[in-house]
Amino acid sequence: MSIKLTILGCHSATPRANAFPTSQYLEINNRHFLIDCGEGTQQQMRKYKVGFTKINHIFISHLHGDHFYGLIGLLSTYGILSREKELHIYGPKGIKEVTLLQLKVSKSHANYPIIFHELNSKESELIFEDDKVSVKTIPLKHRVYTNGYLFTEKEKPLKLHIDNIKQYKEIDRADYNNIKAGKDITLSTGEIISNSELTLPPKQPLSFAFCSDTVYKPDIVPIIKDADLLYHEATFLNDKEDLARKTKHTTSKQAAQIAKDANVNQLILGHYSGRYKDISLFKKEAKEIFDKTELAEPGKYFSIN
Amino acid sequence: MSIKLTILGCHSATPRANAFPTSQYLEINNRHFLIDCGEGTQQQMRKYKVGFTKINHIFISHLHGDHFYGLIGLLSTYGILSREKELHIYGPKGIKEVTLLQLKVSKSHANYPIIFHELNSKESELIFEDDKVSVKTIPLKHRVYTNGYLFTEKEKPLKLHIDNIKQYKEIDRADYNNIKAGKDITLSTGEIISNSELTLPPKQPLSFAFCSDTVYKPDIVPIIKDADLLYHEATFLNDKEDLARKTKHTTSKQAAQIAKDANVNQLILGHYSGRYKDISLFKKEAKEIFDKTELAEPGKYFSIN
Repeated sequence: MSIKLTILGCHSATPRANAFPTSQYLEINNRHFLIDCGEGTQQQMRKYKVGFTKINHIFISHLHGDHFYGLIGLLSTYGILSREKELHIYGPKGIKEVTLLQLKVSKSHANYPIIFHELNSKESELIFEDDKVSVKTIPLKHRVYTNGYLFTEKEKPLKLHIDNIKQYKEIDRADYNNIKAGKDITLSTGEIISNSELTLPPKQPLSFAFCSDTVYKPDIVPIIKDADLLYHEATFLNDKEDLARKTKHTTSKQAAQIAKDANVNQLILGHYSGRYKDISLFKKEAKEIFDKTELAEPGKYFSIN
Repeated sequence: MSIKLTILGCHSATPRANAFPTSQYLEINNRHFLIDCGEGTQQQMRKYKVGFTKINHIFISHLHGDHFYGLIGLLSTYGILSREKELHIYGPKGIKEVTLLQLKVSKSHANYPIIFHELNSKESELIFEDDKVSVKTIPLKHRVYTNGYLFTEKEKPLKLHIDNIKQYKEIDRADYNNIKAGKDITLSTGEIISNSELTLPPKQPLSFAFCSDTVYKPDIVPIIKDADLLYHEATFLNDKEDLARKTKHTTSKQAAQIAKDANVNQLILGHYSGRYKDISLFKKEAKEIFDKTELAEPGKYFSIN
């Protein structure tokens, strides 16, 4: 069980020669997700060697250009690459209409199925689940309808404590599935062997919370509680708290407060406004409140085992 | 009078880490135009220091993604930069609907007027004209409706031949406008002084022809005849002539033949397929037919005075 996060882009909307808008590639429990898709994402994917074909699910937080203008280029490229597998796209209502119109005017024949999951709930909801991972929305508050996403590994089954099991000759392989399912074993003597003696606890499932863009919103804390990794936007430093509130963004200090209140293990900041030349100030400010803070930068890689 | 052309991107659609789809910045006779706008164009503009505010006219050849997916990001950026000036966009029918829908879903408030000039004619037509430059379409043939564009400087007025004029004391400044307009001067003696004696010919107006994407189409030759500079796509080398015909693209050899038949002064090739690692082969092949051939590369600059 592991989380590997590659930052593809982490700057806010105003273009600069070496700034890339939001996009992240998440590997969690052997699932591969793309989160947000600003202009140039596919080129960043090439640069940082993200396998295009591994991705079957793309999560878009909101429909501001710096979070989704790169989606259509990626979809067209999948067409050029003769993709056949289903691609699932999660994002705000409207994403389907605008994407299909773009494909139509460019006569890009997507020969693979694109399945849109349009979101409009203001409550956190489960939007994806398989045997490895679940994904829930984190309702955020920005100038347009926006969701963060919480990615959580599924609990693994109990592990067999083989050394202990071997002490009971009567227990054989046919019992293993019952043991892994948490059942006690009754021997022919009538003795009951407690499941806890026969198993080891599985590794704790890991979780990653992605929160961008949003005004400071403390009511997300219960949703992201104890997350192993939190990416939270920090568009401004504390000196621009008024501007952050007005433009519905967060300061570095506020993001750190969210991380602290939610008791996460590590915080990653990003979405820096172009006005700041020295982004190390974001980390410095956040660390006054929450020490385990890192900065997102294009190509930076975070790994948790 | 001058032409300055900056290549912002010149590769075909498949994304690579250091490949950029089609976009060019043209300065002609003090007018500033953007031609095509593939994904990442605004970042390339930053990189090569193209002034965003100078551009009032954008020409899109066709609605394949590698030629227009970067337009919406640029338009949104103009909104962020508080642009107020009109922006004119020339391109195939459909460009207005898709652009306006993208602005709508992202609630990007373009506070500046965007004026769309949608094209659907199959004949060459004059689509822009002011006192400095005119722009005509070059009907091309691709898998979707496509135009190239011919940019031509306006003829300057005749220049006064001051040394000759000064020999006639009777001719004074009040006559200069008539002389520049090509009129002869009648002296009080009844003697007629021919205009050709009083003027110098103006500099020849320059022209630039942009032709991408298209199958080999010799009937464009009369339209681009004697152009000073021709950009012509060359997606394939001659070994893939069949594939070029099938995908409605041109080979390097065919582009050179167009340049030769049109008697242009210089040819620039671009839109290279990703299958070719060594793009110098395009130049080598073309030079066998047309010597004055250069290769488009990101950031490369061509200047004609």
